[in-house]
Amino acid sequence: MLMRPAPELDVSTWLNSQGPVTLASLRGRVVLVEAFQMLCPGCVSHSLPQAKRVATHFRQSDVVVLGLHTVFEHKEAQGTEAALKAFLHEYRIGFPVGIDRQMGDSRIPSTMSTYQMEGTPTMILIDAEGLVRRQHFGREEDLVLGAQISELIAENDAARQVPSSDSRLANDCDENGCPIPK
Amino acid sequence: MLMRPAPELDVSTWLNSQGPVTLASLRGRVVLVEAFQMLCPGCVSHSLPQAKRVATHFRQSDVVVLGLHTVFEHKEAQGTEAALKAFLHEYRIGFPVGIDRQMGDSRIPSTMSTYQMEGTPTMILIDAEGLVRRQHFGREEDLVLGAQISELIAENDAARQVPSSDSRLANDCDENGCPIPK
Amino acid sequence: MLMRPAPELDVSTWLNSQGPVTLASLRGRVVLVEAFQMLCPGCVSHSLPQAKRVATHFRQSDVVVLGLHTVFEHKEAQGTEAALKAFLHEYRIGFPVGIDRQMGDSRIPSTMSTYQMEGTPTMILIDAEGLVRRQHFGREEDLVLGAQISELIAENDAARQVPSSDSRLANDCDENGCPIPK
Amino acid sequence: MLMRPAPELDVSTWLNSQGPVTLASLRGRVVLVEAFQMLCPGCVSHSLPQAKRVATHFRQSDVVVLGLHTVFEHKEAQGTEAALKAFLHEYRIGFPVGIDRQMGDSRIPSTMSTYQMEGTPTMILIDAEGLVRRQHFGREEDLVLGAQISELIAENDAARQVPSSDSRLANDCDENGCPIPK
Repeated sequence: MLMRPAPELDVSTWLNSQGPVTLASLRGRVVLVEAFQMLCPGCVSHSLPQAKRVATHFRQSDVVVLGLHTVFEHKEAQGTEAALKAFLHEYRIGFPVGIDRQMGDSRIPSTMSTYQMEGTPTMILIDAEGLVRRQHFGREEDLVLGAQISELIAENDAARQVPSSDSRLANDCDENGCPIPK
Repeated sequence: MLMRPAPELDVSTWLNSQGPVTLASLRGRVVLVEAFQMLCPGCVSHSLPQAKRVATHFRQSDVVVLGLHTVFEHKEAQGTEAALKAFLHEYRIGFPVGIDRQMGDSRIPSTMSTYQMEGTPTMILIDAEGLVRRQHFGREEDLVLGAQISELIAENDAARQVPSSDSRLANDCDENGCPIPK
Repeated sequence: MLMRPAPELDVSTWLNSQGPVTLASLRGRVVLVEAFQMLCPGCVSHSLPQAKRVATHFRQSDVVVLGLHTVFEHKEAQGTEAALKAFLHEYRIGFPVGIDRQMGDSRIPSTMSTYQMEGTPTMILIDAEGLVRRQHFGREEDLVLGAQISELIAENDAARQVPSSDSRLANDCDENGCPIPK
Repeated sequence: MLMRPAPELDVSTWLNSQGPVTLASLRGRVVLVEAFQMLCPGCVSHSLPQAKRVATHFRQSDVVVLGLHTVFEHKEAQGTEAALKAFLHEYRIGFPVGIDRQMGDSRIPSTMSTYQMEGTPTMILIDAEGLVRRQHFGREEDLVLGAQISELIAENDAARQVPSSDSRLANDCDENGCPIPK
């Protein structure tokens, strides 16, 4: 599994949200980012319904589901906020959805580029420490996704309840200095 | 069953077609008109795939499938030709699709209004004589739709093979001349 | 299409039926024979549910659905009347089902052999005249099956309304006597 | 969640297995017991395919899937080893399946009775310590089941890797006495 820190999402507008959402503010919870395009058939038929199931079956305090509208084709058709709003309304998608920032003439929007996504749908699983633990392009089975999310939740619970000697040291002052507590 | 003549479709633009399509020009064949909106989930998941199956499994000489984009909500999002083109491309829809004409401030577009449709998806079955034989709002089973289409084809075949007295007259010479038999 | 007369089903026991069912007695109606085995996954998941839909959506006066239990493997497991009865009960199959007659040491039961079926599921469509019009091994789409059944019904309706010269002769008195008209 | 020790399965015959399987011998691994009847439609269409997916997607060293044939109706039809063998063959079920022991005139077989199951399908999740953690009658979503299994695996991994001071104390004698080891 990858263990790199998840770069912040570079979003021009957030829908279904009171204000901007940052990954930093979600530290302590598992985050599922579902990158999609509203005119991508596999997103509509499979990955968005799956993301809705995740939002339904896991506790908000354990897992946060975020959509990311990474438009890299048909920008005239699906690239407007109005189009996305209508889509979210009709498909009853209630979790926050960010519009990935378009970058001048670049085909690929900002976050999609940063994460080097291969297309849509792409799901990204970020653990409670803010590390990317999985990035998957295409279809994933519910059984597998459920297991992976649960694994990250369990890790997090374990970290909270039974601080390992490592993590205790890491948060304490030592000869090297005093780290900011997580 | 309804037996009223099918009013012409009032379409502002045709896609997937060399030029305008008229019901009059399709006389002699059964026509399935599938009225939809690209952001209507039931259309995307059920009725458009069904229309594609009809186009696949029946002979073009027996049945013509036409899409009709009857946008009555989210006009900013789904009301442009560019949006519809992108949609048809992504969902691999190859049959002709007409954009139902918007009428000034009216919410309901022209053909949708003329046919008094209740919403989308709506399917309209027109027989070889140009009569509306069925208009159905919502989901229909493949078994039932297949049977209905086949029934209209069979009627048409029968009409061609066993000329009724009416059609026989029409094909006979009269004072005006001798028509080429159908 | 095949046009041979449908041989009678050679059945040792009929379930869901007051007594033996003969194809001869069903003349004038379209008959769908669904040959299956209770331990055949494709029969359970696809063809039997489809046969139930046919029984639901078409009028009994137009189409009769018959099951035929053609056990050619696992005879100890699925070859008893008790096993089949339990199966029909659990899967809510209400149409008549005949048990294809086992023939001594022969692996293939009688009707299956006569019809030269390739395996299960096999569907056989018999028209109102008692002719085999279609025999299909494997899966068939609802749209296609619905169309085929409807076509045979339409033929039959046409035959009743516009008697062909053949059928007219058949109903007329001749040197052998005067048949009761159909 | 329930935390009672899982009683041993009382099985008359094991299929797909070299010999008898005991829960005791599987301590250290999560066990999914899938209780079913071969003529139970919900088992055939949903719970057995789900159990196969569990067997496919999780490591054998983490999770063991066991079938339990709990025949409480249609015993003549589905109560024989031959019937079950044919079923397992046709449905490509490769994990060990035990035949729940029939008890004289009792309708409910032995293990089904011990576990007080309400019917089929019933799934039982047993953790690596041999405790019943979940017992569910009816359908369960893959996302939820995947999460639950993963949670038990994670607990087990945590227990192996980072023994908490609590659990060490709990199993050792101390000034307060000698607890019975878990």
